[in-house]
Amino acid sequence: MIDLRSDTVTKPSDAMREAAAGADVGDDVYRDDPTVNELEARAADLAGMEAALFVPSGTMGNQVAIRTHTDRGQELLCDEGAHVYKWELGGIPQLSGVQPRILDCDERCVPTPEGVADGYVAEDLHRPGTGLLCLENTHNSRGGVAVPKEHVDAAARAAHDRDVPVHLDGARFLNACVALGEEPAAMTEHVDSVMFCLSKGLGAPVGSVLAGDEAFVDRARRVRKLFGGGMRQAGVIAGPGLLALENVDRLAEDHENARRLAEGLDDVEGLSAPEPDTNIVMVNSEAAGLTGEELSAACEERDVAFAAFGEHTCRLCTHLDVSDGDVAVALDRIADAVQAA
Amino acid sequence: MIDLRSDTVTKPSDAMREAAAGADVGDDVYRDDPTVNELEARAADLAGMEAALFVPSGTMGNQVAIRTHTDRGQELLCDEGAHVYKWELGGIPQLSGVQPRILDCDERCVPTPEGVADGYVAEDLHRPGTGLLCLENTHNSRGGVAVPKEHVDAAARAAHDRDVPVHLDGARFLNACVALGEEPAAMTEHVDSVMFCLSKGLGAPVGSVLAGDEAFVDRARRVRKLFGGGMRQAGVIAGPGLLALENVDRLAEDHENARRLAEGLDDVEGLSAPEPDTNIVMVNSEAAGLTGEELSAACEERDVAFAAFGEHTCRLCTHLDVSDGDVAVALDRIADAVQAA
Amino acid sequence: MIDLRSDTVTKPSDAMREAAAGADVGDDVYRDDPTVNELEARAADLAGMEAALFVPSGTMGNQVAIRTHTDRGQELLCDEGAHVYKWELGGIPQLSGVQPRILDCDERCVPTPEGVADGYVAEDLHRPGTGLLCLENTHNSRGGVAVPKEHVDAAARAAHDRDVPVHLDGARFLNACVALGEEPAAMTEHVDSVMFCLSKGLGAPVGSVLAGDEAFVDRARRVRKLFGGGMRQAGVIAGPGLLALENVDRLAEDHENARRLAEGLDDVEGLSAPEPDTNIVMVNSEAAGLTGEELSAACEERDVAFAAFGEHTCRLCTHLDVSDGDVAVALDRIADAVQAA
Amino acid sequence: MIDLRSDTVTKPSDAMREAAAGADVGDDVYRDDPTVNELEARAADLAGMEAALFVPSGTMGNQVAIRTHTDRGQELLCDEGAHVYKWELGGIPQLSGVQPRILDCDERCVPTPEGVADGYVAEDLHRPGTGLLCLENTHNSRGGVAVPKEHVDAAARAAHDRDVPVHLDGARFLNACVALGEEPAAMTEHVDSVMFCLSKGLGAPVGSVLAGDEAFVDRARRVRKLFGGGMRQAGVIAGPGLLALENVDRLAEDHENARRLAEGLDDVEGLSAPEPDTNIVMVNSEAAGLTGEELSAACEERDVAFAAFGEHTCRLCTHLDVSDGDVAVALDRIADAVQAA
Repeated sequence: MIDLRSDTVTKPSDAMREAAAGADVGDDVYRDDPTVNELEARAADLAGMEAALFVPSGTMGNQVAIRTHTDRGQELLCDEGAHVYKWELGGIPQLSGVQPRILDCDERCVPTPEGVADGYVAEDLHRPGTGLLCLENTHNSRGGVAVPKEHVDAAARAAHDRDVPVHLDGARFLNACVALGEEPAAMTEHVDSVMFCLSKGLGAPVGSVLAGDEAFVDRARRVRKLFGGGMRQAGVIAGPGLLALENVDRLAEDHENARRLAEGLDDVEGLSAPEPDTNIVMVNSEAAGLTGEELSAACEERDVAFAAFGEHTCRLCTHLDVSDGDVAVALDRIADAVQAA
Repeated sequence: MIDLRSDTVTKPSDAMREAAAGADVGDDVYRDDPTVNELEARAADLAGMEAALFVPSGTMGNQVAIRTHTDRGQELLCDEGAHVYKWELGGIPQLSGVQPRILDCDERCVPTPEGVADGYVAEDLHRPGTGLLCLENTHNSRGGVAVPKEHVDAAARAAHDRDVPVHLDGARFLNACVALGEEPAAMTEHVDSVMFCLSKGLGAPVGSVLAGDEAFVDRARRVRKLFGGGMRQAGVIAGPGLLALENVDRLAEDHENARRLAEGLDDVEGLSAPEPDTNIVMVNSEAAGLTGEELSAACEERDVAFAAFGEHTCRLCTHLDVSDGDVAVALDRIADAVQAA
Repeated sequence: MIDLRSDTVTKPSDAMREAAAGADVGDDVYRDDPTVNELEARAADLAGMEAALFVPSGTMGNQVAIRTHTDRGQELLCDEGAHVYKWELGGIPQLSGVQPRILDCDERCVPTPEGVADGYVAEDLHRPGTGLLCLENTHNSRGGVAVPKEHVDAAARAAHDRDVPVHLDGARFLNACVALGEEPAAMTEHVDSVMFCLSKGLGAPVGSVLAGDEAFVDRARRVRKLFGGGMRQAGVIAGPGLLALENVDRLAEDHENARRLAEGLDDVEGLSAPEPDTNIVMVNSEAAGLTGEELSAACEERDVAFAAFGEHTCRLCTHLDVSDGDVAVALDRIADAVQAA
Repeated sequence: MIDLRSDTVTKPSDAMREAAAGADVGDDVYRDDPTVNELEARAADLAGMEAALFVPSGTMGNQVAIRTHTDRGQELLCDEGAHVYKWELGGIPQLSGVQPRILDCDERCVPTPEGVADGYVAEDLHRPGTGLLCLENTHNSRGGVAVPKEHVDAAARAAHDRDVPVHLDGARFLNACVALGEEPAAMTEHVDSVMFCLSKGLGAPVGSVLAGDEAFVDRARRVRKLFGGGMRQAGVIAGPGLLALENVDRLAEDHENARRLAEGLDDVEGLSAPEPDTNIVMVNSEAAGLTGEELSAACEERDVAFAAFGEHTCRLCTHLDVSDGDVAVALDRIADAVQAA
C-alpha cells in the first residue's frame, strides 16, 4: 500500500526509535524532563521565539493558543478553510467561547491587510471585538499553499495596527519555510505565536510545539494542563521530536515528489492537478466522470490510499515514507484506475 | 427631534399605558400571570405555532432559541449580516458553545437551498455537524429586506431534508408579513421557531415573543430562567404587548413613509437610496463626499437623528412615532445638511 | 387564597400602576429612558454605590455580577445553600465557566473570616484560584436570616485581604437592613457589588438592581446585553420600581407578621417554627407525622398556599399583600389542617 | 535524591524503553496503530469493560468522561477532596459547563448511598439536575484510601437508582484492587466508566486509559479529539503502556514499603503517620513544631523530596523507583531533619 492519505502517517525512523528508547526523562509536569526541555528550547530557537511548549497534537497547540490569546466573547478572524475553524470540532466556541469571523481571502487563502481591516470589529456595546487573527501556513485545505512572508507580514501588521495579536497555525510551517526559502525565524517576525507539528512531514511519532514569548508560554502551559495535555516522562516522544527538527531540509524532497506526482496526474486523461507549492496535491477528476470518492475507492483497490476532499477532488500527500519510486508506481496505478472506470 | 435611529424608540400609546396600569397580573415564574398567558396564547396563534414564551428582548428570544435547538459544539448556519451573529455580543459561542458558519446568500441576504446545501456539515470525527439554520426576516443589516415566503420555505426545507431545525429571527417579522401580504402563520409554515419583537414597529415598550411547538417552548422556558429572563408580574408589560398585536396592519403606513423617505433622499444631489421593502431606508452619501458619520452628525445638528451603518451608509427607520409630515420635514433638513456640507 | 408561597407574588399597588402608565420613557439601550436613569441613580445612592443597573430579574443581576467579577475557570466561594449555587440552573458554570466552592458556615449560613480563609484557593498550576466571594443577605434557604453587618464586613475583609472581590446577593437586602436597623449604604461598606430585588417585599411588578462602582457597572451593562437583558422603554417598569424604594420602612410590618405567624405555628401541636429574623418562616411538621408536601397540600385545600422546602419543612413568606388579619386566618386554617390529618 | 513526591516520577524500565523503540505503529487518528489498539483491548479487558481509549493524561481521561456523560448545566456529585474538583483547573465548569456538588462523605472520603441520596438533585425549573456521580479510588487527597468494593457498589447503585451514571477516577485504581485483593473487573461492576493511569505506580512514561461501553467510548473518542488528545503513532507510548499492565501485582511492594515508611515516621518524635492503605503516606508534623513546608524543605536539603499537602501535613509516595533500602535511608534522613529543626 502506498499511503498518500496524509503526512501524519509517517513512521518513526530507526534513529527516532532509538531516541525514544534512550531519552533522558523526568516528570514534565514538574518540568523535570531534560529531553522535553531541550526540545522546547530548540524549537523556540528555530521559530525565533522566546519559549515553546510541547503538546500532544497540533489541534491542542492551536486551541491552547486561541484560548491563551483571547477573552471569551471576542472574535477570531480566520479564512473560511482554516483548520482551526473547519476541522477542530468547534473548539473555538467550545473551549474558548470565541466567535469565528471569516477573513476574506483570495482563492488560495492568502490573507491581505484589506481583508484584516474589513473583518476587524472594534469592541462596543453590541459587538465583542476582534481578539485574534489566525493565519495558516502552509494552508492545508487549499492544497498546501505556501503563503509568502510579505503576505504573512502584511496581514499580521494590519492586525497589530488594531492591537490584535496573531497566531500562526503552522502544522506544516516548515514545509512553507523550505518551499519559500525563508528562515523560520524570519517567517514569524510579525506573529505572536506559532504552532508547528513534529508528527507530519518531519516524521516524529507524536507531538507538536507551540512557541511564543515567555509570558504567553507560561499562560499556555496552564491551559495545556486544563485541556489534559500535561504529560509525564514525555521525553520518550520528545526525543524523536528532536530528531524531527533535523528533517527540515529534506522536506524539499517531498515537495519535489509532489510536483512530479501532480505533473503525472495532470497528464492522465480526465484528471487535472495544479502545480503544488509543497507536499499536498489536489487532483480534480470531474472530467473523468469520477467523484472524489469513486476515484479514491478505485485507487484503494490498487493499493494507493488517499481521500476525497470535495465532490470531485482528492488530496494526496507526499512524505518521508513515499519515495520517488513510490510516486511512479502510484501514478501508474491511478492512471489504471481512471482508465478502468 | 425627528428620531429615525430605530423603530425601537417608539413610545407606548395612551392605550398601552392604560393597559400597563390595568393589567391583571400574577407571578409569571409560577405561570400565574393571566395577561402574560393571554399574550403568549395570542402570539402563538398569530405565528401559527403551538405555544409561545414572553421574553424581555429580541436578543434573549434569539439566544434562547439557539440554545434550545442546539447541542454544544454544533454549527449554526446564518448569513454574514445576521443579527444573531453580528450584534448579539458573541452569544452564539458564549451562551451555546456553538460555531457560526456563513450561509452564502445573494446581495440582499435572501437564502437559497443551494446555500444551505453548501453550508451544511455532517457530523463526523473532525466536524461538529450543523445544528441549526437561522434565517432573518425582515433582514435588518441589508435594509429591511422582506424575504418572500417561497425563499424562506425553500431554505427551510433544505435544512429539514438534512434534519436541521430552523429558527426565524423575526425581530421585524410582521413588517415582512405586511409587506409581502402573507399571513404570519403561512410565513412560518416551514420553520420550527420564530422570535418577533413587540417593542419595535408594533410599539410596545418592552418585550418579544418566542414561538414554537410545546416541547420546544417548555425547554425554552428553562433556558429563559437560566439567562435571567424569568419575570414576576410581567403582565404590566404584556398588557401593552397585547395591544401591540393590534398594530400589525398599520405597519403599512411605516412602509409607505419609508418609500417616500427613500424617494426624497434619492432626489437629493449626492445621495442615493434604493426603494425599501419595509420600514428601513439605507442611504449612501459617497457622491456627496460625506461619510455616514459626517452625514448623521450634520443631520443631528438639524434635529434629525439616525446612525451610520457603514463607511458611506446610514440607516433610517420609520415607525409609529414618525408621521408623513415628519418625513417631509426630515427630508428638508437632510437636504439642507448635504447642501451645507 | 392567602398566598404565602413567596414575597414575589405581591401585586403592584394602584400608585405603582399609575407610575407605570405615567412614566417618562425612552429607549434604555440608548440610555434614553429618564425613569430608568432616575431609578438607577436612586438605587445606587440607597446602596451606597457609584452606579447601578436595572435588570429584569434577581437571577440576571446575580449572574451578571458573577460574570463581570470573574475570569473563566476561577472559583466562586459561597455557602451550600446559596441561591446563586442552588437555584439558578447552573448559571455559575454555564454562563461564567466558574466553579463553585463551598464556604463553610454555621447552621444559619452566617459567613466567617475563617471560612473564607479555608475556602480560599490561590492560583497555581493545578488550581484556578478564587475569583469571587458571594454572600447572601437575608439568607433565603436558611429562613430569611439577617446576617449582621459585622459578619458581612469580616467575611468581606477576609476576601479583600486575598484580593478577592465580594458580591452580595441581596434579593431581600432591604429586609436585612430593616431587621438589623442598619443603613443600606453601611451594610455594603465592604462589598464590591450588591443586587437587590424591587419585585419581592418592596412590591414592584418586575425588576432588580445591580449596584457597584462605575467601571463595574459599565462592564455589567455589556454582560446584561449579552444575556438578553437590554430592554427598551423600561421606564414602564422602572416607574413602579421607584415607588418600591419607598416601601423599605414598611418591611418591618412583614417581619412583625412573620414573627406572629411563627409564634402561632409553634403553638400548633405537632408543628415547630423558630422565631424568624425577617419575613420568611420555616415550619417543621415532623412531630405531626406530616411531610412538608402533605402539610402544604392540606393547607392548599384550605386556601392557604405555601411550599415544601425539605422533607418535613415548609417555607412561608409574609409580604405586603398579607395583612395581620390574614395571618390570623392562615393560622386557624393551618391548625385545622394539622388536626384533620 | 530519594524522590517521594509522587508515583508519577517513575522512569520507564529498560523493557519499556525497548517496547517504545520496537512498537508496531500507525496513525491512531485513523485507528491504524496496532499497539494502541492492543493496549485499548487489553485495558478494557482488565477493567471488565467493552472498550477503552488511550489518552495522554489522567486529567484528560477524567474530563473526557465528565463531558461524555453529562449535558451542560447538570450537576456532578463528588467529594470535597476529589481530584476532578480540586486539581483539574476548573475543567468541570470550563470544559463541560457542569456544576460540582459536594458529596457528603466520612473522613476518609468513602462514599455512602445516603450521601448520594442527599446530594442528588432532580431536574426542575430552578435546578439543573444531577448528571454524574464521580468516585475516586484510591482516594488521593485522603492518603491513598482504598475504598472497599461494597462501598463503591452501594454508592454506584444509589446513583443508578436515580438514573445517574457513575465515573470512577481510578488514577490509582489498580493500587486499590491490589490492596483490597479484588479483581479489577469486579471493582467496576457497578460503574459506567473508569479511568486509570499507566504513568503512575505502573511505571509507563506517558498515558492513561478510559474504559466504558462501546457507545460511551465512541463518543469519548470525539471529545478526546476536541480536547486535543488525538495522537498519531502513539504506539511508541502505548508499547510501554502494555508492559505497565504487567506491573499490577508488584504494586503490593509499594504498599509494603509505604507501610514501613509510615511506621518509621510514626516512630519519629514529633511526627505521626497513620497506617496507609496503599502507596501514599500522610505525615503530620505539628507536634514537632514544623509546618509541612518546613518539613519538606528540611528534608529536601537531605536529598529526600516530597511536598506539603496542608498546613502541617506532607504527602509521601512509594513507587517502583523506591526500594526498601531507599525507605530505610529516607527514614534516617527525615528523622535527622526533625531533630535538627
